Parts: sequence; structure tokens; C-alpha cells
Amino acid sequence: MSHDLDTQTAEAHAVDVTVDELRLVDELPGSGETASADVAEYALWLGDDSLILSQQLAWWISRAPELEEDLALSNITLDLLGHARALLHYAGTASGRSEDDLAYWRDEPEFRSSWLVEQPNGGFGDTIARLFLFSVYQVQLYRALLTSSDATLQAIAAKAEREVSYHLDHAAQWVLRLAGGTELSRERIVTGFERAWPFVAELFTDEPLNGRLAGIAPRPSELRAGFDRAVDTVFTEAELAVPDLPAARARGRSGVHSTRMGYIVAEMQWLARRHPGASW
Amino acid sequence: MSHDLDTQTAEAHAVDVTVDELRLVDELPGSGETASADVAEYALWLGDDSLILSQQLAWWISRAPELEEDLALSNITLDLLGHARALLHYAGTASGRSEDDLAYWRDEPEFRSSWLVEQPNGGFGDTIARLFLFSVYQVQLYRALLTSSDATLQAIAAKAEREVSYHLDHAAQWVLRLAGGTELSRERIVTGFERAWPFVAELFTDEPLNGRLAGIAPRPSELRAGFDRAVDTVFTEAELAVPDLPAARARGRSGVHSTRMGYIVAEMQWLARRHPGASW
Repeated sequence: MSHDLDTQTAEAHAVDVTVDELRLVDELPGSGETASADVAEYALWLGDDSLILSQQLAWWISRAPELEEDLALSNITLDLLGHARALLHYAGTASGRSEDDLAYWRDEPEFRSSWLVEQPNGGFGDTIARLFLFSVYQVQLYRALLTSSDATLQAIAAKAEREVSYHLDHAAQWVLRLAGGTELSRERIVTGFERAWPFVAELFTDEPLNGRLAGIAPRPSELRAGFDRAVDTVFTEAELAVPDLPAARARGRSGVHSTRMGYIVAEMQWLARRHPGASW
Repeated sequence: MSHDLDTQTAEAHAVDVTVDELRLVDELPGSGETASADVAEYALWLGDDSLILSQQLAWWISRAPELEEDLALSNITLDLLGHARALLHYAGTASGRSEDDLAYWRDEPEFRSSWLVEQPNGGFGDTIARLFLFSVYQVQLYRALLTSSDATLQAIAAKAEREVSYHLDHAAQWVLRLAGGTELSRERIVTGFERAWPFVAELFTDEPLNGRLAGIAPRPSELRAGFDRAVDTVFTEAELAVPDLPAARARGRSGVHSTRMGYIVAEMQWLARRHPGASW
């Protein structure tokens, strides 16, 4: 990137391509392809999960207990937003909508995110438990998508898999640190897992759509064994037990959401909706 | 980075170095040196500016009008946080304090940030005007520090200069877009500049400390001409006039802050202070 503002601005205008547009191409792996209706719906599920969790994690930035953690959560938020954007962009190709149309102009029942990512940030232990479980799931998911017959999903997974592996490492370090810290910190992470656990099952529930994506995407149920092994590894080291709790009746893939979702969506959308079509 | 959680966790524990600590070394250019009292104070000024602006920009993440902008603001927040951390780390070496001690355990009058970065986020136009002016300043500042005789400041500047140049490009694109957009968007950016302008002068005011840093850091007043030229380039293209407004009596370098600063500091510190010494 040139550092001379004078020539930079002139150049950008001369070729009519902004810095942001150049970055966009980098950030949307596999852009240019058009998704089928089924693949678009699937991309929406994944994109919404990442979008909603990124919106939730953003709350922590500037409020984390350490600068290092502030940076780490910023990094994770940014990664998830990047995945969301790529996935929503791809989802939108099936219906001629942009990623912004999908992020800002759908109403709550049109979102396909799972209930786990909608759960409250709560305390730091709750946030880490949620991030850990979701990251274990995402590592399994994106690893499986590395061999997708859909070139765009494959390209997105290739970038995302590295990033969510870092999220998992980071969250796992915190699980160990909290579980092995003070009585209070241990209690917090135990409680965090108890709160999050009922929403794990939804991530691995096969929907009719999954049956139509053979070769393109794994069935959620296929990912469960890997998830359980990875969780078990960390839980054993942290001397934590898998909570013995029933699954919540979570139906995010059908657009049925928990009560919190309305607030999350409203906060995310208010500015974009206040000025529809604004040339910002 | 290994993607196998099992071996990853085992490896990290075997050498007793966490992923985060490995990253820390990467992120703190020139770490290992000890700052003199004067250099430490100077590093604090710069670090506090970046810290406070990053905390303020973080509010926008998840609330920006476009996913692209959400990503861009996340990126900028993250960059500024990284600079703050490196600078506060270096500042702390003079007094045996960590960057977290400095971020979370100083009271408001001990912060040395300028008033510009404390100004309210306001609307998007206000945020962009503030970011643009501050980024022009930072580009001048870090360019000058590229030849600092202080190896750590030089190393920090080498990394930061590239990043703040991107912030400037990004903000400049928005200034042009808002100024050349609708009547409303133009009014917003004009108002944004009117609100921010009184706080520009402080950034270029020489303090006694600056006189003791010859060869180490530029005098703020030396950076003004370059700032004015860069602002003029964009303002000319955007057909904006430099506001004819007197300088505010801003004295952030002496620890005198605007009324907003208490809230910013409180929000940043509440969690860390709630659990002093917690092994998170």
C-alpha cells in the first residue's frame, strides 16, 4: 500500500477502485460463483452463526480483563465477521442479494443462526464456554468442508479452518486457566458450560436440507464424534465433567429463535435501516 | 499453527508457553528494552491516544452501516489496540509496571490522551471526521519516528506507520464519499469536522517533555505542516473548508480531561478492577 496520501487518493480515483474494494476481493474467497438454492440456504446457516457470534463478541472489545484479551477477542470477532461476509455474499448470489441485504434487511425469523450463538455474553466464563464449544464445532465443520465439491465453500473453509483453529486454541487455554485458577474462576467456567450445553445438540441435528448436500457438506451428525473427542481432551485436562443436561428445543435453522435474538438483530440493523439506501 | 487440538494443548503445556505468549512477543516490537523516564512518559502519551480511540471505535463494531465497514472498523480498532499495547508495555518498563497495570489501574488524571480521541463517537460522520484527522496526525507522527534514535520507538513506528496509513486511506475514502453523497451525508461530515477541529491544535502543541526528546521524537509542532498539507489535499477534493474555529483548551498531556473521559475509563476498567489480581 502506498503511503503517500496525495498519490494514493489520485490513483484510487483514476482506476475507480477503492482500497476497500480491493480488500473485498481478497476477503471473499471463491467470489464469482453462483450458489444453488440449497447451497445458498446452507451458506446462510453458517454465515448467520458467524455473524451473530461476532456481533455478540464485539461487546467485549474494550471491556476485556486484559489488553491481550481485548486484542484476542477483537481478532476473533474480525475473523468471524470475515467468514460471515464471505458466506452471506455467496448465499446472496442465489437470489441477487448482497451480503448487506442479508445482514441488515432480513427480519428475525429469516435468520438461520443456532441458539448457541444467541446465548447471552453473561460473564467472561460464559463467553469462553460458548466460544470454546462453538469453536470445537467449527473446526470439525470447516475441516469437513475442506473436501467439499463446492469450490466456493471449499475456498471459504480453507481460510476459515486456520482461523477457527486459533479460536479454539485460545478458548481452550482459557478453559484450562479458569478451571485451574481460583475457586471462583472454576465455578464461572463450570457454570458457563452448564448454560451453554443445552444448545450444543442443535449444532449436530440433521435437517432435511443436509440430506440434499451429499458431497457438498457434511451432515451435522457426522461431526459429533470429533466434537466429543476434542471436548473430552480439554475437559479431562481441566478436570471438568460434561454437563448432564437435556438439549434445549432450539430451532434456529427454521427461523425460530430465543428471546434475545430480537435485540441482537435490532442493534445490528438500526443504523443501516435508519438510512435505507444511503450512499454512506 | 498446529490444528490438532490434542497435540497443540500438550505441546503448549510441555514448554510452558501459551499461544498467547508466543503472540505477545510478535506483537510487541522491540520488547526487551527499558525506557528512560522521559521516553516512558512519551510512550504513555502515544499509547493512551491509541488506547482510548480503540475503546471508542469498538462501540461501532456490530453497529456499522455495512458489513464491510464493520470489518474495517474492527481492523482499525485492533491495530490501535496493538499499538497501545506495545507503547504501554514499553512505558511500563521504566517503572516495573505491565501494560495491564497502565491500562486498568490508572485513574483518569493519570491518562495522557489527547482530547480529540475522547470526543464522542456521535454519528458516523463524527466518527469518520475524528478518525480522519487523528490518522493524518498519526501518519506524520509515525513517519517521523521511523528515524528515532530509540530502537523500540523506531520498531513500533515501523509497524504502526503502515497500519495508520491504511486507516487514513480508509477514512479519506469515507470523507470523499460522505462529502460527495447526499445533502444529508455532506452535512454530517461537515458537522463532524466542526466538532473535531477545536481538538486538533492540542496534537501539535509542544510540551516541555518534547524539548528533552531531541533525536528520539519529533516536536509536535514540526508535524503540523505535513498535517495541513494532507488535510488540504482531501478537503480540496471533497470541496470542504477547514473550519474557522478556535482551539479548545485541551490539556490531556497534563491529565486534564473532558467530562466524557471518566465514562470511557470506567467502562474499560470495570471488569479488570472487579477482580483485582484474578488469574482469569
